[in-house]
Parts: sequence; structure tokens; C-alpha cells
Amino acid sequence: MKTPFTKIEGAVTAPRGFRAAAVAAGIKRGGKLDMAMIVSDTPATAAATFTTNQVKAAPVKVSMQHITKGRACAIVVNSGNANACTGTIGLIHAEAMAAAVARRIGCRETNVLVCSTGRIGVTMPIVKIEGGIKKLLGSLSANGGPAAARGIMTTDTFPKQIAVRVKAGTKVIRIGAIAKGAGMIEPHMATMLCFITTDAAIPRAALQRALRAAVNQSFNRITVDGDTSTNDTVICLANGLAGEFPIAPFQQALNYVCAELAKMMVLDGEGVSKFVTVNVTGAANDRDADIAARAVANSTLVKCCWCGGDPNWGRIMDALGYSRAKVDDDSVDIAFNGVAAVRNGIATHAPLARLKKIVAAPSFTVDIDLNLGRGRCTIHTCDLTEKYVTLNKGE
Amino acid sequence: MKTPFTKIEGAVTAPRGFRAAAVAAGIKRGGKLDMAMIVSDTPATAAATFTTNQVKAAPVKVSMQHITKGRACAIVVNSGNANACTGTIGLIHAEAMAAAVARRIGCRETNVLVCSTGRIGVTMPIVKIEGGIKKLLGSLSANGGPAAARGIMTTDTFPKQIAVRVKAGTKVIRIGAIAKGAGMIEPHMATMLCFITTDAAIPRAALQRALRAAVNQSFNRITVDGDTSTNDTVICLANGLAGEFPIAPFQQALNYVCAELAKMMVLDGEGVSKFVTVNVTGAANDRDADIAARAVANSTLVKCCWCGGDPNWGRIMDALGYSRAKVDDDSVDIAFNGVAAVRNGIATHAPLARLKKIVAAPSFTVDIDLNLGRGRCTIHTCDLTEKYVTLNKGE
Repeated sequence: MKTPFTKIEGAVTAPRGFRAAAVAAGIKRGGKLDMAMIVSDTPATAAATFTTNQVKAAPVKVSMQHITKGRACAIVVNSGNANACTGTIGLIHAEAMAAAVARRIGCRETNVLVCSTGRIGVTMPIVKIEGGIKKLLGSLSANGGPAAARGIMTTDTFPKQIAVRVKAGTKVIRIGAIAKGAGMIEPHMATMLCFITTDAAIPRAALQRALRAAVNQSFNRITVDGDTSTNDTVICLANGLAGEFPIAPFQQALNYVCAELAKMMVLDGEGVSKFVTVNVTGAANDRDADIAARAVANSTLVKCCWCGGDPNWGRIMDALGYSRAKVDDDSVDIAFNGVAAVRNGIATHAPLARLKKIVAAPSFTVDIDLNLGRGRCTIHTCDLTEKYVTLNKGE
Repeated sequence: MKTPFTKIEGAVTAPRGFRAAAVAAGIKRGGKLDMAMIVSDTPATAAATFTTNQVKAAPVKVSMQHITKGRACAIVVNSGNANACTGTIGLIHAEAMAAAVARRIGCRETNVLVCSTGRIGVTMPIVKIEGGIKKLLGSLSANGGPAAARGIMTTDTFPKQIAVRVKAGTKVIRIGAIAKGAGMIEPHMATMLCFITTDAAIPRAALQRALRAAVNQSFNRITVDGDTSTNDTVICLANGLAGEFPIAPFQQALNYVCAELAKMMVLDGEGVSKFVTVNVTGAANDRDADIAARAVANSTLVKCCWCGGDPNWGRIMDALGYSRAKVDDDSVDIAFNGVAAVRNGIATHAPLARLKKIVAAPSFTVDIDLNLGRGRCTIHTCDLTEKYVTLNKGE
């Protein structure tokens, strides 16, 4: 099938009527970029999904409130401090961030969405944040998308951005997006922020449905370390400047944008050396497939042997067995890049050297067929390396 | 309360009428001990608990069958090969191990219990195993308990053994035990083997109840890496040579024996540098306390910061939040060795340096009060280190 979209430059400022910027506000040491802003010149229809963690950061609580209005003019983001587990003062700070932006761009406070990422439990340096907001407003630019992508990075090693032009008949719209990973990444949702802009006019309910669908098949299908953060947020702003657009090609392009960013997050997982796709088929149902795929993708032992290039499928069998998915060990098939390693629960004659070569590569696919039903699920994940531990040992 | 028992030497051969041995049968390279045997001179009452993993190794399937008879004369164990995911030939090999022992000591095949530990998915070198059994039978000794403790080690760095003398009035019995850890360790049960002997006469049903109770408060309360193995087995043999004994002091001593071995397993977890006790209180119920404690104890990020001596309680809050236990972040209290770090979900004024000093020590306790109810649970766990990854990368 011909895709209705092509990749273009510009990230979140590729769609018409959006400006963005990033600045160093002094929240992080060493003059690193630590704040970003995206502004829509006209109020945009807004949709969002937030962390399912019961412990929600103050900006998440505030943005969940604000998004109920269904419209937004700006997103303001800081890194270096999560503003989570900060009590009432945290809520006051998150509201203050929204209010400072609203006052200066002339919109309602509820039309500003707020995001934070960084260490949990530390009171926000609100004076620096307010200074940063002033600088951001002075730096907003219609070419600022790539800068904003860098501004929201934490332990990410590269900025995550994408933009597409989508055609339907004579109509053309654009979707742009930026995201950050890179640790505490597990579905439903990862410690991740993602901001998507479009100049399509999409009604609010349809936008929310489209975003949820795109998130479910992208960010909710990746895992780095199984930890779900307090701050995860995906926001989509549709300002309508390019007019109405049919939902089907919009959804297809949105799915692509989210899937590409999700894969970038796994590739840039902390200390990651391998990108692994785990396909489970033949599960009793889709839910079981999901449970089984996640058990494999999150097993510390499985991830360690991938790091060493060891196709230790016994650990995969073990993880399947302790997952709560229904598993009959006599009917499990496992293949690496299509080379059958296990059939009916026991080793095939595939030479170990051949399997090792596959698992030694920077990216490979593990296909697991439980041969019990029609349930299926794909999860993108990575290995667990010494570097991951080193990166996460200290502050 | 005065404990009714004192520690003694001798491991599984401390109780009367048990002999044990360990040999190098050539399953592992380099002449390492890789087989062990424990024999009761008279048929013993037998109780056992097995892995809850749906993928069960052949020796587990065979021993689950044999234990239904309620009596056993011998336990034969090999390391270096798990005999898991080996299909019909694996079952034949496990039966052959039991048969070889039974034939030579003159008991029924069903009176021999079989255990294996090692790599999954590799066919057993059955000729070497049978050679090992012959050597074991020639080496059995009433002082062989400590040797057997060494014989079942895999990546363990020290043998795990304990024995106690238990008194009740004028009656005296002994309990001895050996165990192995050290990776793939999570409750319900760990990749662990534990063999317990006693010369007390305990009826079969009471022995099974006592063992289950002891396992639930020991091996099922530890976690190293959250991976539950295909081979976990705890067996208790009671040969009755010291006569009948009241169940209460027996249970107390058995609990102690299992708890001590469980702690040794965590201390000897692969690459472990810290022993951490996670106490959850105030959960809505005991099940929620268990879920919350395990979420913290198994969080990759929490374990990494412990490794670095970083009291990053934000990660604990995060793990509590994504656990399925009911959590209200405004009512969570967290303390390290009794020093309050979090009260009502936000940081106390405890100096970071003071908390860091606690977490830098080789062992500490994290107390988490959810302030929601009366549920409580204690889990013993460890940190996640670069060394763990290195140890588990290759074969």
C-alpha cells in the first residue's frame, strides 16, 4: 500500500503556525539546554495521554486538568527536575509555570500545558524557571522545532524528532513531533515526553481517539527497563491552519510518527547496545500475548544474554513460563531472525554458531509462537548492559 | 523468647542416619564438583515444594510424581545442566537417574528424588551422570553434608549450609540443610535448590504443612532478579530416628533454617554488593503489601541506585506508583534504617549526606508505610551491579 505521507524537516515547527524554542535556564549545571516551549499562533485543539502511574508529578496533575478544556496555545517543558513528590508547593509551581506563559502570550492559564522531567522529590527552582520562560518567549521561532527537540533531552544521546507531509486528494497537512526517552521506559507509558503538532483541523474527540490509538501501538509497545515514570506525557496540538482533513490518512501518518519516535527511544535507551523486536503469536488471546512478550522483554536474565550475544533461549522459555500467560512448554516455537531455535519446546538442530551470529548483531527479531490460539503482540526492547547500571548508579 | 534450638555443624548429615557425598562427574569443565547425593539409611517421610513456573524441568516433573508416595530414601542432584526443555528424552534421563540410584541402594525408583540445575535446553550427558552416581555411592559419608553443600553450587561463591539441634523437654532432634542460589532468584520460588534433613519423626501431612509455611516466610520472600526458574525445589526428609517431636518447636527451628539459607542466597546473589530489607507496612491488605514490596525490590532503577549508594527515594515512589498495590502518594512515608526520608509523600529535612551514608553500607533496611491499612510484608533483596550483567552476559 502506498503511504500517503513523506518525511520532511522541521519537527514540531513543520506544520504551519507553530513556533518553538529551547534555552538554558540554569536548572541543569553546565549551561545545558533545560527548557523548551511550543506555541501555536492560534488556539489549537488539544489531546493528550498521561502516565498510568498512581504517583503523578505535579505538572501531570495540572496538565490533566487543563486538557479537559480541549484547547491549548502553548506547551512549556523543563528538564532537570521532575516536580514529582513535591506536595502542594509542586502544584503551585506547575500552575505558576502555566500562568507565566499565559500572561505573556495573552491566553488563559488553562490553555497552557506543563511538563517536567528529571529527578523526583526536589523542589523546583522556580525563579530560574520563570527566567527561562522569559528567555523562551524571546526566542520562539518558526524554525525552532529541532532546538526544542534538544531542549527536552535528559540522558538521551540524540534528539528525537520527525515530521511528515500528508496528502489526501488535493489536501495537504503536516504533522511534526519531538520526544525524549531514555530510562524508566516501559509502556503505559514510559518516562517519556512527546509533543506532536499538526496544522490539520481535527475535531477534539477524533484527535483524542487518534492519539490514543497511535500511542497504544507505539509508546505502549516498547520497554527499556520496565519502570513506568511519574511524568510521562504525550500531547498533540491541532491548530487547523491547513483545514479539514480525512481521519484515515491522518491516523496512518500519526501512527507512523509515534512508531518512529518509539523506536528511537528504545535505540537510545540508557546504555543500550541492541534493539530487539519480540513477536509473540499463537497466544490464547491478545492479552496473554502482551503478557508473554513483556515477560521476555523485561527479564533481566534474557536482556543480559542479549548483551553478550548469547542466544540463551532457555531464559526465554523460563520467562514465558513464569509470565501469567497460558504456556504449554511442549508447544512453544522460538526463532531468531526466522531461524528456528526451538520447536515444540525443545532445541532444533540449528547450529549454535548461526544463532550466536544473529544475536551478536545490533538488531534482531525473536519470534515466539505459543501455538495455543490467535493472540499476538509485538514489543520493541533492548538489552541490559553494564553501562545501563553505571549510568543509573549515581545521581 | 528463648529459641529452642542451637546451631551445630554438619549440614544435612547432622541429623542421625543421613549420609551424603559430592563428586566431579565431568558435567562441568575443569573437574569442578557437579553431583551430590543425600541418602537416608531408613526410608524417610518426604515433603517438597516445587517451582511455580509453568515450564518445569524434567527432574521437577519426575520428583513431583515420586513425592506423591510420601517417602524417600535418596536425593540425587547434578549441576551444570538443568535438564529443562529437553522433551521426552529429558524425562527418560531424569527417570534413569532415579533408577540408577534405586537399583544400587535397594529401594524403589519412586523413593529417589532427582534435581538438576544449570543451563536450560541441553540434553543431559547421561553416561557421565551414571558414572557420577556410581562414584557418589562409593563416597557417601556421615560427614558428607558440607561436601554436598559444595557439590550443588553453581555460580554461588560460598556453600550454603546450616544445622540446628532442637530441644523440647528431654527430647532432642536435629535439622540440617544445604542450598544453592544465586541468579534467577525470585520468590515462588527462586532458582534454588534446598535439601533439608531431620531425624525427627513428623507425620507426612504435618511435614508438608511445616515445609510450606517455612518456605513461604523465607525463600518466597527474597528476590535477586525477579526471574523464577524451571528447576526450583525444596525437599525435606524426616527419617524419624530421633523419635516423635512436638510440631511447634520443630516449625520454629525449620523457619529459622529456611530463613537463614534464604538470606545467604541474597547475600550471594550474582554480583551483589548490598543486602537490602524492604519492609512495607500500612498497605490496604497483605497482598498489596507483597505487591508493593516486590515492585520496589525488583525495580531495575531502584536496584541500580542502591548499587551506587544513592538514596534516590523518588525511584521507590515511582515503583510504588506503578505497582498494582493501592497507593496514595500523599500518605507515603519512607525511611532508611529508621531515618525518615519521605513523610506524606514529600521529602523530609533529613540531610542527603546522612541518607547516603546509610545506603553506602553493605546492608540496610527500607521501611515504607503506605498509611492505608494493616497489610505488611518483608522482602529481602539486593542491588543490581555491573558485575551481575557481566556474569550473565555469556554462557
